[in-house]
Formats: sequence, structure tokens, C-alpha cells
Amino acid sequence: MARTIGSDGGKTEAAIRLAAAGLIARHGFEAVSMRQLASEVGVQVAALYRYFPTKQDLLFKLMSRHMEELLTSWNGAVSKGVDQPTERLSAFVEHHIRFHLGRRETTHVSNLELRSLSPEQLTPILALRARYETELRTILQEGADAGRFAIEDTALTTMAIIQMITGVIVWYRPQDRLSVDELIAHYSIMTLRLVGAAHDHTD
Amino acid sequence: MARTIGSDGGKTEAAIRLAAAGLIARHGFEAVSMRQLASEVGVQVAALYRYFPTKQDLLFKLMSRHMEELLTSWNGAVSKGVDQPTERLSAFVEHHIRFHLGRRETTHVSNLELRSLSPEQLTPILALRARYETELRTILQEGADAGRFAIEDTALTTMAIIQMITGVIVWYRPQDRLSVDELIAHYSIMTLRLVGAAHDHTD
Repeated sequence: MARTIGSDGGKTEAAIRLAAAGLIARHGFEAVSMRQLASEVGVQVAALYRYFPTKQDLLFKLMSRHMEELLTSWNGAVSKGVDQPTERLSAFVEHHIRFHLGRRETTHVSNLELRSLSPEQLTPILALRARYETELRTILQEGADAGRFAIEDTALTTMAIIQMITGVIVWYRPQDRLSVDELIAHYSIMTLRLVGAAHDHTD
Repeated sequence: MARTIGSDGGKTEAAIRLAAAGLIARHGFEAVSMRQLASEVGVQVAALYRYFPTKQDLLFKLMSRHMEELLTSWNGAVSKGVDQPTERLSAFVEHHIRFHLGRRETTHVSNLELRSLSPEQLTPILALRARYETELRTILQEGADAGRFAIEDTALTTMAIIQMITGVIVWYRPQDRLSVDELIAHYSIMTLRLVGAAHDHTD
């Protein structure tokens, strides 16, 4: 389990993660074997088990790292002096779409393979997801409290927005007619309208 | 392949579909075997193959039937004299949520197992999905043309709404604090605001 960034061990582990995310996203967790994964990375199966004692452990680590990086990345993005609720909401939409478009495969694994986690693994993953949802929920609540948003149900609106902006990753391809910037601009406008903040932006 | 509704054959086929949707939704297509499915239904594996020649064929039939029933059900709902774009959009949201909440397992299979279809199977399923998306897209376009909706990009808004309202099925449970009617009312309001139709309804 030696993990020194930049060492061969670190590189091998990163290569395993990358290959695993790709294989699981394409074929599903159940269909991928450790043998197949080792062959994809070009290592012995025994080497694989040194980094990830079980296939289940590998899935858990992929998913927990994905969520931790998402939270860290968002905290970095939001700390850059974004104050107004409308700006913070737009920043959230933009960050969410950019982050996930840059990590399609782990995003698919994270969204499709919750059912493959054990109950003990599911609890911390759901806690990380709840932490992330709370980030959006807080923006919505603060905007509503400040009279900037018209929201009937903050919890429901949080889920609606997250699912709307996560859905982008399923169908959008970089070669589409819209650039990523245009895509984000549209989703930002739709989100602002959805929370009743349209008057500041489209009138 | 005898299929007389109400006959033992029809009942057996329906029981196989039901059990298959449940098993695939819980474990994933790759993880479910025809043997396991036969045991769940209480029939011989040979009987299973009489109805569904391959596991792949079974998956395709589950998914195509799900989409065909969705289209038929929506056409029945919308033909009941719903004329105004806002009413038709609300009717679409309501029908979509009710239909999918009543078919959680086939909904999960339909959304998660596209990757398990062969290319030949994927084409007609995607065509059915496109037909359904066109239903919503037409409502949005007619509303925009009539000056009732403010929509920048009809195709994008179609995907955003479908993914927002499909996401409900992932987290909503009937025992939640909100009833299905309340849930639908909230999603309908959010959708109308998203398309810029809020003034007719919330002012």
C-alpha cells in the first residue's frame, strides 16, 4: 500500500484506478474481473491485490476519492470571493459541470455502482454525497433568506438541480454543437430561473 | 413464444419479466444468470429460454416494452384535451413522475443498462427514447412559439427537464415527508419556472 506520489508505486496505483474506472464504466462492476483489470494495466494480478486487497475495496476507493476530490475542488472554486447567492449558484453549476465532464468514467461509476457497495461502504459514500448536497442547499437557503430566490422546498430543489446538471454528463460530447462554455451558460440560466432568480439576469 | 394474455403462458412471461426487472435492478444485468432468474420465478431454465431465447433478448424486451408503454401511456394522458402549453408541460411532468414511480425497477434497468445492449439492440431503444423526448420538445417549442415560454435552446431544455424529473425516481420513497401529489406539484412549478412560464402561475 506504499503510495508516494510520483514513485512507480504511485504511478501504478493511478494507472490501476484509471483502467478500473474505464472498464467498470463500460461493462459494469460485476462484469469486470481483477484478472481483466491486471491485463489492461499490464501488471500481474498479485500486484493489483497489493494496491487493492479486493475488487470491492477498489470500487469503494474509486468512489470515495471521486467524492473527496469533488468537495475539495468545489471548496477551492468557491473560496475565490463569490459572495452573492446568484453568483454562488452559477459558480456551483459551472464547477459541477466542468468537474464531471473532466471525469466522465469515475462519474459513471459513482452514479451507477452504488448498488455494488456493501452496506458498510455505502454509509461513508452517502455521507460524502450528503456533504456535497449541503453545499448547494446552503446556497439555496441563503438566497431564499436574502429574498433573492423563490424556493418552495430547499431539499427538493437541491436534488432537482443536482440531477439536472449531472444529467449533462450522460449525453454531452465535446464535439457537440455547443461548446462547454455555452453549455454551462445555458444550464446556469435555467438553474437561476428554476430558483426564481430570473429577474436579475434575463429581464 | 405463445403469448395469450391471461393464459398460463402470458402469466409466466409476465412473472419472468417482473422477476428479471427486480434482479437486474438490484444486481446489474451482468451479475444475473438465467439459472438464478428461473429459480426466482420457480420454473425450469428450459422454460425461461422458451420465452426469452437469450438473456440479452430478455433485457432488450424489458427495455423496449418499458419505452413503448411509456409512449402509449403518455399519448393516452395527453389526448384528454390538454391544450395550453403550460398545461401540457405540467401534464408531461405529472405523467412522467407517476409512470416511473409505478415502475421503479424497469426504470432503473432502462436507465442503467443501456451499456449492456448490443449495438443492434441499442438503435431501436434510442429511437424510442428520441420519440419520447420529441414529445416534450414539441411542447416546449409550441410554448416558445406562442410566446408563453422563454427558452434559449429547446433541445438542451428538453434534456434538462427529463433528467431533472427522472432523477426523482432515484431518491423519492412513498413514505417520504411529501406525498406523490405534493412532489408532482413542486416539480411542476420548478419546471414552469425553468422554462420562463412562472408569471402565469406564481404571480
